[in-house]
Amino acid sequence: MKSLLPALALFTGLTCALPACAQFQKSEDAIKYRQGAFRVMAEHFGRIGAMANGRVPFDAKVAQENMALVDALHGLPFSAFDAGSDKGAPNRARPEVWKDAAKFKAARDKLDGEMSKLAAAVKGGDLGAIKTAFGATGGACKGCHDDFRAKDYSAN
Amino acid sequence: MKSLLPALALFTGLTCALPACAQFQKSEDAIKYRQGAFRVMAEHFGRIGAMANGRVPFDAKVAQENMALVDALHGLPFSAFDAGSDKGAPNRARPEVWKDAAKFKAARDKLDGEMSKLAAAVKGGDLGAIKTAFGATGGACKGCHDDFRAKDYSAN
Repeated sequence: MKSLLPALALFTGLTCALPACAQFQKSEDAIKYRQGAFRVMAEHFGRIGAMANGRVPFDAKVAQENMALVDALHGLPFSAFDAGSDKGAPNRARPEVWKDAAKFKAARDKLDGEMSKLAAAVKGGDLGAIKTAFGATGGACKGCHDDFRAKDYSAN
Repeated sequence: MKSLLPALALFTGLTCALPACAQFQKSEDAIKYRQGAFRVMAEHFGRIGAMANGRVPFDAKVAQENMALVDALHGLPFSAFDAGSDKGAPNRARPEVWKDAAKFKAARDKLDGEMSKLAAAVKGGDLGAIKTAFGATGGACKGCHDDFRAKDYSAN
């Protein structure tokens, strides 16, 4: 699996550049797609975190399996912030996603950078390094959430 | 990308055997995870279908990119039919998912087989072969939906 990580990360980064190319027929589809991708990605990210934080025993192979999925998935939601997809289904995207696209892209780039470091740490198999990289990656997630994710779902 | 397909398919098949190992803290988490994974997978499956059915021009590279994601994702929902996760959030899983686990596994195995053929066809790059394999894979999806997916969401 180790050899898949960089290739898959590169691949998912190429799928669609920001601002999102419109591949969804309805904004509802874009919203549910990005929510689904975030959900699945977060689950596998969390399983790495459970090991990093000592809630479950560390297993290098399991960490690598989960990291491969995180790597494959974490770029996908960013392909689904189509223009107009602030509405169409309940969601938590703030208007700043579209109003300040450069800042949003910078937040995504920050995430990509931290994810790359986490992938390298998981590949290396050193739990201390994984813990450090996991914390930094979680910080990148939180930074973007703080700026671009509303507390409550819209009623749309 | 081509070399990723079989490895990733194998990998995702190993993640969790049926009946699902319980990795989710709440049944709501399992339900939302499998719905999210199905949603994202279906989106990329549909993009291959749009080419197979002539709605968009065929692009072998784009087909391969989407197939790599379908391959990475299509096994994931089946890791999330935890015992008790018929309830916890609105969902369409019929009781037969758990009552007739052998038949449900057979339906998943059928899907896996057709997906492998589709992956091979996409790798080969022949649109006629892709169209045939896409139709068979869609049939496997539908067969499982007919038997195990309710028409309406539960009120749970």
